[in-house]
Amino acid sequence: MAQNPTLYTSLSPALLHLYDVKDSVVVVIDVFRATSTIAAALHNGAKYIIPVDTVPKAVEISAAVGGIAAGERDGKLAEGLHHGNSPLEYTKDFIEDKILVLTTTNGTRLLHMALVNGADDVVTGSFPNLSCVCNYLIKQNKNVILACAGWKDRFNIEDALFAGAVISKVKSHFTIHCDSSFMVEQLYSQHQHDLLKFAENLTHYHRLVNRFGYIDDIAFCLTEDVADVLPLYKEEKLVKG
Amino acid sequence: MAQNPTLYTSLSPALLHLYDVKDSVVVVIDVFRATSTIAAALHNGAKYIIPVDTVPKAVEISAAVGGIAAGERDGKLAEGLHHGNSPLEYTKDFIEDKILVLTTTNGTRLLHMALVNGADDVVTGSFPNLSCVCNYLIKQNKNVILACAGWKDRFNIEDALFAGAVISKVKSHFTIHCDSSFMVEQLYSQHQHDLLKFAENLTHYHRLVNRFGYIDDIAFCLTEDVADVLPLYKEEKLVKG
Repeated sequence: MAQNPTLYTSLSPALLHLYDVKDSVVVVIDVFRATSTIAAALHNGAKYIIPVDTVPKAVEISAAVGGIAAGERDGKLAEGLHHGNSPLEYTKDFIEDKILVLTTTNGTRLLHMALVNGADDVVTGSFPNLSCVCNYLIKQNKNVILACAGWKDRFNIEDALFAGAVISKVKSHFTIHCDSSFMVEQLYSQHQHDLLKFAENLTHYHRLVNRFGYIDDIAFCLTEDVADVLPLYKEEKLVKG
Repeated sequence: MAQNPTLYTSLSPALLHLYDVKDSVVVVIDVFRATSTIAAALHNGAKYIIPVDTVPKAVEISAAVGGIAAGERDGKLAEGLHHGNSPLEYTKDFIEDKILVLTTTNGTRLLHMALVNGADDVVTGSFPNLSCVCNYLIKQNKNVILACAGWKDRFNIEDALFAGAVISKVKSHFTIHCDSSFMVEQLYSQHQHDLLKFAENLTHYHRLVNRFGYIDDIAFCLTEDVADVLPLYKEEKLVKG
């Protein structure tokens, strides 16, 4: 019987180089909020999303393609942009058939890191599109790296919780010898029925809710399968897979 | 009222640069087995320990000071050395009044990284000397970085468990806004009464027990306060604090 493919979890962009992304599916995870926003926009009919690493690039490219420039820095609307990183902004009325050009502090940066390291099968994951991601990983039957974005290279629990949710659903299809994977699955198992309450303990919750009041964003970002699409990276765009 | 000092947990040597080690007490944590061995040797009367980063240096320095060269690479006795990294090797009969020159894959490397980054208050921590470390942290009343050694920069649960044990005992004395710290404390709380059984799930357990048979080492390394000394780094030596 063929050995199952392997699955590893990278807890921070600063640890991604320890894993072989080249022959793997890389799942970029930035639960609060980039990858949740990506799922929401594609689910609501965005034509595609161009993830970029700087605000000037977002402005320039959106002008060139007739798209919407959006993004945040340090949790706030980035200077020079008129649309932020809230998944709730990207309703069907607003985003259908449009191109979104998105830049964020951690998520889009990590996506570019994965590409620079040679990844060629990259998707984005979040609770709103959990099932689609899991189904894709099982179908691809390749090695998997769950790549958590964290906050400026620091570990974040919300990304770990999503990695744990994926593992709890796909683990019978993979060979997993990885303490990070084991830990995140433990964490998810312990708190899966109480994610929103548990989130009150997290540093990112304090930043987003106590400073900016984004409680509805947090609730959306922790709800499974409410925007169940597969954002697949192809030719510098995230498209519906 | 003065603000409590801060406490952060670094889950891997590759994340240590994110934290300000200069004005902090840095606790170097390599539970399997370097920091447990350091505690055992000092507790059993070693004069002091010189941690070095390479095997040739261990041989050279031990010859110069009339000490015992010891260490491991990849979990095994390092080539050219006659003593390994098992805490059980360093009994009173063997180590009392002697100088130990120790090199290990992860723990001694991390210690040198902390020093290179400008740390000047460095101790080593492990379950066998948990209480001494906690008492020191409370007494010093300075910021704290709990620095996990992991395995070749990958996250290891056993180091996380020890960091969690420290936090559970000292947290009322510190200001803690750090997802890593919150996660490790959760992990420890969940498994503190069952550490040895829980350890069977860990990658390092498989390496040490299934490949090399070190089950007695593992049991020692997970027992609290059986070698309760404070290994304090001073002038290139670890001395009893």
